[in-house]
Amino acid sequence: MPQPDHLTRLTHPEKPDLSPEMEAYFDKCREKLGMVPNVLQAYALRPAKLEAFAKFYNEIMLADSGLSKLEREMIAVTVSAANRCYYCLVAHGQAVRALSQDPQMGEMLVMNYRVAELPPRQRAMLDFAWKLTLSPQDIAEADREGLREEGFSDEDIFDICDVAGFFNYTNRVAHGTDMMPNPEYHAMSR
Amino acid sequence: MPQPDHLTRLTHPEKPDLSPEMEAYFDKCREKLGMVPNVLQAYALRPAKLEAFAKFYNEIMLADSGLSKLEREMIAVTVSAANRCYYCLVAHGQAVRALSQDPQMGEMLVMNYRVAELPPRQRAMLDFAWKLTLSPQDIAEADREGLREEGFSDEDIFDICDVAGFFNYTNRVAHGTDMMPNPEYHAMSR
Amino acid sequence: MPQPDHLTRLTHPEKPDLSPEMEAYFDKCREKLGMVPNVLQAYALRPAKLEAFAKFYNEIMLADSGLSKLEREMIAVTVSAANRCYYCLVAHGQAVRALSQDPQMGEMLVMNYRVAELPPRQRAMLDFAWKLTLSPQDIAEADREGLREEGFSDEDIFDICDVAGFFNYTNRVAHGTDMMPNPEYHAMSR
Amino acid sequence: MPQPDHLTRLTHPEKPDLSPEMEAYFDKCREKLGMVPNVLQAYALRPAKLEAFAKFYNEIMLADSGLSKLEREMIAVTVSAANRCYYCLVAHGQAVRALSQDPQMGEMLVMNYRVAELPPRQRAMLDFAWKLTLSPQDIAEADREGLREEGFSDEDIFDICDVAGFFNYTNRVAHGTDMMPNPEYHAMSR
Amino acid sequence: MPQPDHLTRLTHPEKPDLSPEMEAYFDKCREKLGMVPNVLQAYALRPAKLEAFAKFYNEIMLADSGLSKLEREMIAVTVSAANRCYYCLVAHGQAVRALSQDPQMGEMLVMNYRVAELPPRQRAMLDFAWKLTLSPQDIAEADREGLREEGFSDEDIFDICDVAGFFNYTNRVAHGTDMMPNPEYHAMSR
Amino acid sequence: MPQPDHLTRLTHPEKPDLSPEMEAYFDKCREKLGMVPNVLQAYALRPAKLEAFAKFYNEIMLADSGLSKLEREMIAVTVSAANRCYYCLVAHGQAVRALSQDPQMGEMLVMNYRVAELPPRQRAMLDFAWKLTLSPQDIAEADREGLREEGFSDEDIFDICDVAGFFNYTNRVAHGTDMMPNPEYHAMSR
Repeated sequence: MPQPDHLTRLTHPEKPDLSPEMEAYFDKCREKLGMVPNVLQAYALRPAKLEAFAKFYNEIMLADSGLSKLEREMIAVTVSAANRCYYCLVAHGQAVRALSQDPQMGEMLVMNYRVAELPPRQRAMLDFAWKLTLSPQDIAEADREGLREEGFSDEDIFDICDVAGFFNYTNRVAHGTDMMPNPEYHAMSR
Repeated sequence: MPQPDHLTRLTHPEKPDLSPEMEAYFDKCREKLGMVPNVLQAYALRPAKLEAFAKFYNEIMLADSGLSKLEREMIAVTVSAANRCYYCLVAHGQAVRALSQDPQMGEMLVMNYRVAELPPRQRAMLDFAWKLTLSPQDIAEADREGLREEGFSDEDIFDICDVAGFFNYTNRVAHGTDMMPNPEYHAMSR
Repeated sequence: MPQPDHLTRLTHPEKPDLSPEMEAYFDKCREKLGMVPNVLQAYALRPAKLEAFAKFYNEIMLADSGLSKLEREMIAVTVSAANRCYYCLVAHGQAVRALSQDPQMGEMLVMNYRVAELPPRQRAMLDFAWKLTLSPQDIAEADREGLREEGFSDEDIFDICDVAGFFNYTNRVAHGTDMMPNPEYHAMSR
Repeated sequence: MPQPDHLTRLTHPEKPDLSPEMEAYFDKCREKLGMVPNVLQAYALRPAKLEAFAKFYNEIMLADSGLSKLEREMIAVTVSAANRCYYCLVAHGQAVRALSQDPQMGEMLVMNYRVAELPPRQRAMLDFAWKLTLSPQDIAEADREGLREEGFSDEDIFDICDVAGFFNYTNRVAHGTDMMPNPEYHAMSR
Repeated sequence: MPQPDHLTRLTHPEKPDLSPEMEAYFDKCREKLGMVPNVLQAYALRPAKLEAFAKFYNEIMLADSGLSKLEREMIAVTVSAANRCYYCLVAHGQAVRALSQDPQMGEMLVMNYRVAELPPRQRAMLDFAWKLTLSPQDIAEADREGLREEGFSDEDIFDICDVAGFFNYTNRVAHGTDMMPNPEYHAMSR
Repeated sequence: MPQPDHLTRLTHPEKPDLSPEMEAYFDKCREKLGMVPNVLQAYALRPAKLEAFAKFYNEIMLADSGLSKLEREMIAVTVSAANRCYYCLVAHGQAVRALSQDPQMGEMLVMNYRVAELPPRQRAMLDFAWKLTLSPQDIAEADREGLREEGFSDEDIFDICDVAGFFNYTNRVAHGTDMMPNPEYHAMSR
């Protein structure tokens, strides 16, 4: 059964109209990752958005934070599992497998993070992200207190909300457009 | 009963460490709006994020799009009603009242957008945003087709997903930190 | 955008067939409130029901009770927010703004009562009403005990159930008929 | 296993303080039904409410309407099944068994009304009542049109909303107080 | 109103092709129960499945276990109430009435098990079965610990999962095929 | 991070008390699969159940049916995704990858079956299984008709209900006991 090879269900220009800065960024992706992640190619439908999105993404996921890069990817996968987002589960599931060097844990976060044996700090972080995703109106001071008890600072709590919130955004862009991930992810880091 | 006057439930620095660019931006807010929206003050807890957030926000809500600014604010309020986000309902509810010059419609979107008498185009747009918010995994090609039938282009559909997705992000940062809106919004544009 | 001006989506007689007692009651409404609330005009489609409804309503909301009139209106708004009932949110949201002289709290109850800074007694009362509205089968003795600990008597608990239950009724009549509130409410008590 | 014999989980006076009119009404119940329904005994905790409640109840369930008494009881049971209200399922389940002389249909409405073989008119009526109970905000003009197509007049639609709404009220008073039905109902009309 | 007399909504052969072992089993049912339960007649559409199903059923419900037969039937009814399965509520509701000699408790489990006055052991068992039915992914070690505190061994916990799981299976076969119970159950053990 | 290596959270005997038939069956598993699937080892806690379970399982998943073995595994994964069951997603996800020789489709069924490009027959089959899993009470004749239109016979529909129902059972035994899959599955058929 041949699986989908569309980028999204929207019509994309043959050749997107990229700024020199974004051309360079795509080249850098090809060089470092061997591909341009489809999410970037999808945003090229709206080139001005692409630029703002890429900067925002890099700030949230890669800049300095009290959360490690792996922890931010763990939140990404947990939120995407709650929302059943195929694109983000494939792309960020691979990131968790790679950064943790623990493919089984990557699968657990994709399928049901509650079965993973995590340090209490990370379990609390993911419980918060899950609740913030599925019933945001129920988050209360007690939930923030729970994070503080595990050693998270208030800047860290901001970052947990920020990362969890951000994937609630990307999950919806991916679902809304039926965005497909690059097939390369599947075999990586198994 | 005196109501909350905290910015968020996190500890914010007395004086945030803003870049000159952000200082200027805050000054411009004070000049044009008579206040710095609390969301910007809250992001100042993480100054590098503030800058990326402000650019991303402005690109999504204010840059060129097939969706009018009012339509983007209507999506913002509808998504925030689904998520019961006090901050965004207050701030963007005011924006809808102001841009539409129709305070009653602003109230309807806050309380239940289905009671508003909207042109079919806007009703379809809000139905899509509501579904993308509450059951993103159920969006299917038929939903995108429904938007196309109302005259939305594929770039417009991208923007609907983008705006709806974005407020699913901000709603969660606001819920996660218990962010309070500036009290000035309440009396404006009634 | 002109907003709906129908009473409900049902066909109402030009001139309802009111009993002399109800004629007098409508006159009293016009005199005291400057209008006849649309809910009463809607019930006039079934004149015998109007009379029983008005008496029942007045008994529940205005007669002696361990709950203040403001507290009963707070329950009305919280229940109506859970059910997203436009009619009751507009009419009773105004009542909360007026009785509390705190328009911001009125908005909070409409949008998300959990963000309001309420005395523990009133927070417990609204938590109970919210749960009784959205998952009535989960109410247990522990919930009633929680109310008793805040000083509510058993008669008060009966009245909390009664008021919360009652707006679960009116919300459904309003949703079922698409009842519109009098437009005068919007600008009042801001 | 002895089952509960409390009236509700609230403390009721040994001898409620009934008006002469209500004393007579209770006597009439004893004479005609062989018992005073527990819901009336429970409301006697708040005697003024009892009187308004009894009149309202009788108007809704027994007065003239385009809906037969059996149809109103069918709505009562369907709504109470959606809310899993023990009191109302027992008391009104018995009423459906008695009025329909079809005990199996009574059981079906208690357990899952969709399995009953009902005339399309009654199926439409119960589908509307179920939806109005569990997702009132989703009722739309198409739902009312569906009722009109089955021959319901606008007065009848009002009455369907009224009866369905009313049991959303009584279900919550019963759940909120843990009201127990008279044990006599169980064996009746089997 | 004549009620459904179909076995399921599928087409069944006039005379099922039963193995001698199953012929004997059906005869034994007729002799001991006065009827062949419809679920067995329904499985005769797939005769090889009938045999495996009957053995599996008897092992789960009738073989040695730390749970009494009544307790297993109580789980059956509670799970079937959560899933609103008419077939299983009728057939196993009768079993609870018969085994407990407490018809009122049978009705309580059908309508809302939380109102029954059960020993803590059985309440814990039913709470676990309800949660395992409606949100299986939320079961955690604390839930198993709760059962252990009521004296259940690990074999018993396995059996609770097994019985609760099993009725989640049969409920879906019954819903999926619209299976009707034998009408004889209704009047039995009242 | 070392991941869980428990069989379940229950205490299992060092050496289960297997019948000669089951000893032989375990040997056959070791020979053909290189391992005894953990689900069988878990059931060995209750040896009589193990035997009935194994026969029932083999009848449902491996015996003659109008559904291919791959189709039955596709239902298994889709149901287990709805219930977020780690054990069954790992074990049956591997089966889908192996039988379909399409690892990407295996991932899609685990993460969100709606993104897979399936023949209409299989899409209809999985839509039915998903609905039967998450809202069994909403299955109606129209759903069965939809299957018939895709060419499924009534025996096939029985088997779809049977397979979907069965994994609603095993998912709950796995969740209820926190059953872990054999780690070998992860790397297979990628």
